[in-house]
Amino acid sequence: MRIDAALLERQLDALFAIGAEPGGGCYRPLYGTAWAAACDQVERWMKEAGLATRHDAVGNIWGRVDGSGGGSAVVTGSHIDTVRHGGRLDGALGITAGLAALRALIEAHGKPKRPLELLVVCEEEGSRFATNFWGSRAIIGAIGPGEADTVTDAEGVTLARAMRERGFNPESISSAARDDLGAFVELHIEQGAVLETEGAPLAVVTAIAGGVHLEIVVTGRPDHAGTTPMDRRRDALAGAAAMVQAVQSIATALGRPAVATVGTLRVEPDQINVVPGRVTFTVDLRHSDAGGRRALEERIRSLCSTIASERGLGIEIRTLHERPPVPMDGAVRQVLERAATETDAKPAALVSGAGHDAQVLAARCAVGMLFVPSIGGRSHCPEEATDPKHLALGTRVLARALELLAY
Amino acid sequence: MRIDAALLERQLDALFAIGAEPGGGCYRPLYGTAWAAACDQVERWMKEAGLATRHDAVGNIWGRVDGSGGGSAVVTGSHIDTVRHGGRLDGALGITAGLAALRALIEAHGKPKRPLELLVVCEEEGSRFATNFWGSRAIIGAIGPGEADTVTDAEGVTLARAMRERGFNPESISSAARDDLGAFVELHIEQGAVLETEGAPLAVVTAIAGGVHLEIVVTGRPDHAGTTPMDRRRDALAGAAAMVQAVQSIATALGRPAVATVGTLRVEPDQINVVPGRVTFTVDLRHSDAGGRRALEERIRSLCSTIASERGLGIEIRTLHERPPVPMDGAVRQVLERAATETDAKPAALVSGAGHDAQVLAARCAVGMLFVPSIGGRSHCPEEATDPKHLALGTRVLARALELLAY
Repeated sequence: MRIDAALLERQLDALFAIGAEPGGGCYRPLYGTAWAAACDQVERWMKEAGLATRHDAVGNIWGRVDGSGGGSAVVTGSHIDTVRHGGRLDGALGITAGLAALRALIEAHGKPKRPLELLVVCEEEGSRFATNFWGSRAIIGAIGPGEADTVTDAEGVTLARAMRERGFNPESISSAARDDLGAFVELHIEQGAVLETEGAPLAVVTAIAGGVHLEIVVTGRPDHAGTTPMDRRRDALAGAAAMVQAVQSIATALGRPAVATVGTLRVEPDQINVVPGRVTFTVDLRHSDAGGRRALEERIRSLCSTIASERGLGIEIRTLHERPPVPMDGAVRQVLERAATETDAKPAALVSGAGHDAQVLAARCAVGMLFVPSIGGRSHCPEEATDPKHLALGTRVLARALELLAY
Repeated sequence: MRIDAALLERQLDALFAIGAEPGGGCYRPLYGTAWAAACDQVERWMKEAGLATRHDAVGNIWGRVDGSGGGSAVVTGSHIDTVRHGGRLDGALGITAGLAALRALIEAHGKPKRPLELLVVCEEEGSRFATNFWGSRAIIGAIGPGEADTVTDAEGVTLARAMRERGFNPESISSAARDDLGAFVELHIEQGAVLETEGAPLAVVTAIAGGVHLEIVVTGRPDHAGTTPMDRRRDALAGAAAMVQAVQSIATALGRPAVATVGTLRVEPDQINVVPGRVTFTVDLRHSDAGGRRALEERIRSLCSTIASERGLGIEIRTLHERPPVPMDGAVRQVLERAATETDAKPAALVSGAGHDAQVLAARCAVGMLFVPSIGGRSHCPEEATDPKHLALGTRVLARALELLAY
């Protein structure tokens, strides 16, 4: 079985050029022109590799080779959409590596026992419409009737209208659902720096972290910055600053894979000479197991409330969004570990802090993921990069795993 | 000498009604319609009280009774402009109380020895144009040529155009300068809660605090909130939060009258799932003496730099604005203390954390200020209020002080 690593690099370059943005990186928002051009390009490559292609109702592309023994499909792939100023590998790697693996397998062994498919997911990033996992949610039948009419992009275009303009029919979304999937395996970049730091060339993902988004509103009293002595203040920002510190300390003390981030913070009235009366900030917290995630959230809620009460501040904590951790399938993990070991790569075990389509598809099939290192941990930016030898290694391990699953 | 406290309250009500805003309070921006109506009203009151009135080139109103012995003028008064949703007393008290005092003095004693004047300052708040102390700066001759052409309001109207539309000539600004002022005494509300807390009915101001506005930019590295372990982050907001805490602790430890406030803070990229890469915040710090102010600033600069370096963060600290503390004139303070004691009010001694025209006029004459308590310390809001007995007391002490200075 021969992986064409040079072709893989050329295809990554070709995809990166589609939707290239001024200022660096590329942007391929769902149903846009660059998105459609990238879909066309990948579909041509699929056909060249001998796959039978079709688009489903939301624009996912499936490239298939039937299995001699029937049964549920073994699937690999990733998403074709990108964030703004996105990098060369996020999504694109899973598609091009999947293509390289399938081409190599078909060349070496011909028809598989189980059906083998390459999936190009239409949308995962949520960077045009406020909807993540549009593609994989359609595959598991989780998109509600009328949902495409309620979601709009920044220009006010509904998802339904964007679908129609690209030739898709929002009335048919439910036809994209599949109940014949057996396994889904995706190769992705880590998007963090753990593998690089530990000198590991590859990881088998153990779980996709569950997460909670909290919104915390701290209320004090706006006062004149000149006339209010320090000991007479109820400064919402001083309180919020203590909470930001607490969030960081709690996650650090719990240790990996707990992470907690205050990513946004807004001060009111936001005047240089007025003691802040109100601060609103968000906490993004993640953990790979439900108990760890709960412990993290409970400690953060409790310590923030204590800080507020000690300082005479009001506090409201609201859950904006919550998703449970998704463990990867045990049997698929074993296959991935075996494939790695046979390819002479000792795989690390890693929790994915980022979300991926696998966490959605886990509702319908056995899922697993492979990570290769990100140089400097950089992702979602033009500098996103991985050593070519790691890209080739990841692709070989992916191919061997698909061989073990489908042949 | 009889102070008409009921008339004082009615005049405060009448001024508060001019420029009344939906949502509460009043707004009388410089050269606006409400501003002009309030000027007209006060000028009518001045004439009724027997004062000879005139407008200077920027719109300050002077009401004068000549002195039998000549010499430099004894002046009282305050500003007629207000902040948005301003209260009933800030500025208006100094004008109406000055009017009540002059009326009572003229009724009781007739012509003073030294000229006695009531000054209605056209602008102090800076709430329309980004220029504080426009009125008092004109009086000390500190407005540069062409300055009125370079400053614009939120609608892009230059100060020069706003002057012309109200009938003033920007070419004549320098004619507003006076070199014949002897003393300026102003009655103002405290705008803080120190007097209320200490149960003092009145304060003689010892100094107007000096202040510095700093802008601090903290740079870390934007990272994925899910894939970057806590121990691999350079979180600009976590660092800035430690600095906000430090600013508060340093000012609290130095004790009154040191105050330091982080009033604005901006996070970049300000996304819920991205570790902040850059935070910009401001520090407003004030102290009544130059040494104290320097100590406060040096400790804040030093501790913030230490925090940045411990966390591997970049830091830039820039001085946006700086003004030295202004001590009140010793002789005027003694007159105010004597006037208070003779009126059976034991005066507190207080540093003004807020800025006032007296700090500008101090360049041309001996200045002093009296403060009366603010209920709940509230100011620059519709709820701004002072017990009527404190308003009457402050006016009586002001009148007695003017008597001591001018008769």
